Amino acid sequence: MSVLVVGTTALDSIKTPTKENPRLLGGSASHAAVAASFFSPVKLVGGVGEDFPKKYIALYRKHGIDLAGLQILPGKTFHWSGEYEVNMNHRRTLTTELGVIETFQPKLPAAYQDAAFVLLGNIAPALQNSVLDQLRKPKFVVADSMDLWINIALEELLRLLKRVDGFVLNDSEAQLLTKEGNIFVALKKLHKLGPKYVIIKQGSHGSILSGPKGYFICPAYPLAAVEDPTGAGDSFVGGMIGYLATARGGIDATIRRAMVYGSVTASFCCEGFGLHATTKTKRAAIEQRVKELEKLTRF
Amino acid sequence: MSVLVVGTTALDSIKTPTKENPRLLGGSASHAAVAASFFSPVKLVGGVGEDFPKKYIALYRKHGIDLAGLQILPGKTFHWSGEYEVNMNHRRTLTTELGVIETFQPKLPAAYQDAAFVLLGNIAPALQNSVLDQLRKPKFVVADSMDLWINIALEELLRLLKRVDGFVLNDSEAQLLTKEGNIFVALKKLHKLGPKYVIIKQGSHGSILSGPKGYFICPAYPLAAVEDPTGAGDSFVGGMIGYLATARGGIDATIRRAMVYGSVTASFCCEGFGLHATTKTKRAAIEQRVKELEKLTRF
Repeated sequence: MSVLVVGTTALDSIKTPTKENPRLLGGSASHAAVAASFFSPVKLVGGVGEDFPKKYIALYRKHGIDLAGLQILPGKTFHWSGEYEVNMNHRRTLTTELGVIETFQPKLPAAYQDAAFVLLGNIAPALQNSVLDQLRKPKFVVADSMDLWINIALEELLRLLKRVDGFVLNDSEAQLLTKEGNIFVALKKLHKLGPKYVIIKQGSHGSILSGPKGYFICPAYPLAAVEDPTGAGDSFVGGMIGYLATARGGIDATIRRAMVYGSVTASFCCEGFGLHATTKTKRAAIEQRVKELEKLTRF
Repeated sequence: MSVLVVGTTALDSIKTPTKENPRLLGGSASHAAVAASFFSPVKLVGGVGEDFPKKYIALYRKHGIDLAGLQILPGKTFHWSGEYEVNMNHRRTLTTELGVIETFQPKLPAAYQDAAFVLLGNIAPALQNSVLDQLRKPKFVVADSMDLWINIALEELLRLLKRVDGFVLNDSEAQLLTKEGNIFVALKKLHKLGPKYVIIKQGSHGSILSGPKGYFICPAYPLAAVEDPTGAGDSFVGGMIGYLATARGGIDATIRRAMVYGSVTASFCCEGFGLHATTKTKRAAIEQRVKELEKLTRF
């Protein structure tokens, strides 16, 4: 089954302690869509400006991504620039130029409206809600978000959480949203906001699922070199829903394995700037790392 | 087989955001010895002052710990006091009164000198070396340490690392010792210092082993309430070596499972002040949590 992905489609200028790469293809939807494409056909919903490089359209196409839902709008593409600290664990935003994303309104082509698996990638919760409004009967909807929306669009985010099956956020966002430092207490509070499945991302420490079958502790793939972690969280959730959409046996039977596939897809993302490493990955290399993670966690 | 444990035997006064408990039984050797006692007979090496409460001697005895190597010295018992921040992840030392530990010299009774499994718990590396000097032919020696010794006794610590099989340290200590932020690169550097097995403790994120069979990602048991994490690292390594000393099949075949037993023993430690929760634990409760962790990590 195909996956519908909405989120930001952006140009990212990224600085790390050793390198600098301007105007790479980025944004939550770009990372998630490419990650999901290793497992399922993907339909993209997003908006870019007239300056959006043709080579990035070609990159989406290379991954078989359906672009009927990608609007090319008058103005400039959303541009973000940021800088990572030495240990790659903290980054600071240098500039945010919203461009066309400021007025972007997602419009789903008719062929998108029957989507069964839906990823509401990180973008304003009002837009995530608007995508949900246009869907007929989705089978599984997962939403991602960020601290910004918790701070400036909480009401809209809370309205969204009542409508989704899964919610993905990181440690500090969980703490911000629930005012609770212990993640297992935070998870209980997050379920009360609506989602049946809540996943806390913990970067290089992996992730934790809380769902109807209890917790799952999902490992991260060991990386001795992290070139650029931008988009790793989007790649994780993209890989996860891409796998879920093709796996047989229902969500509860497959979500753990789906998270591991997401985790491995994210590990490739970290090995190159922007989408450089992800886009060079093959399904076989993903399978190899999933097998390794199985061995690394058995006792 | 029995386990020899050396380290500090102390009184800990611990403050958390909600509670305060003065002069609890603490110290690396106390936590590690009680943790190991669930799996193997334990021989303790340490030094306390004349003020050391009889009830704590009784507590050691309750766990079947051999006290022939515990010296009662003229003066006061080592006393540490510290305070935890709200999220329990950071603590600061309020006072450190060394007392008898300042001049303590470990002396191994004859019956200790054939010990096969040895835990050199956190104490000055010169004393850890001195214990090794008194042993005939240990089969497996693991050392723990702390940032203090990396800062003030590096040469002695490096001499120790050439003589041990295993070394256990936390994230920030690994970074301090190797000047390397990526833990998988740090692990390679740590092996070069001597130990065949290196374990990085990551608190609530679990731990990572690097050994002849590669990496093992060891989970932490999910705790919705942490009362006092003091001694959790000591309990982890104590439980681990206690299990190793009784397990059949050699170190490589049993160390992963031993780490999981250590992780679970540490989880009980966190659920009470000082040794309160650890000492009330039964082997059956440990087995139950090990089974749960197996389920929580399978995919």
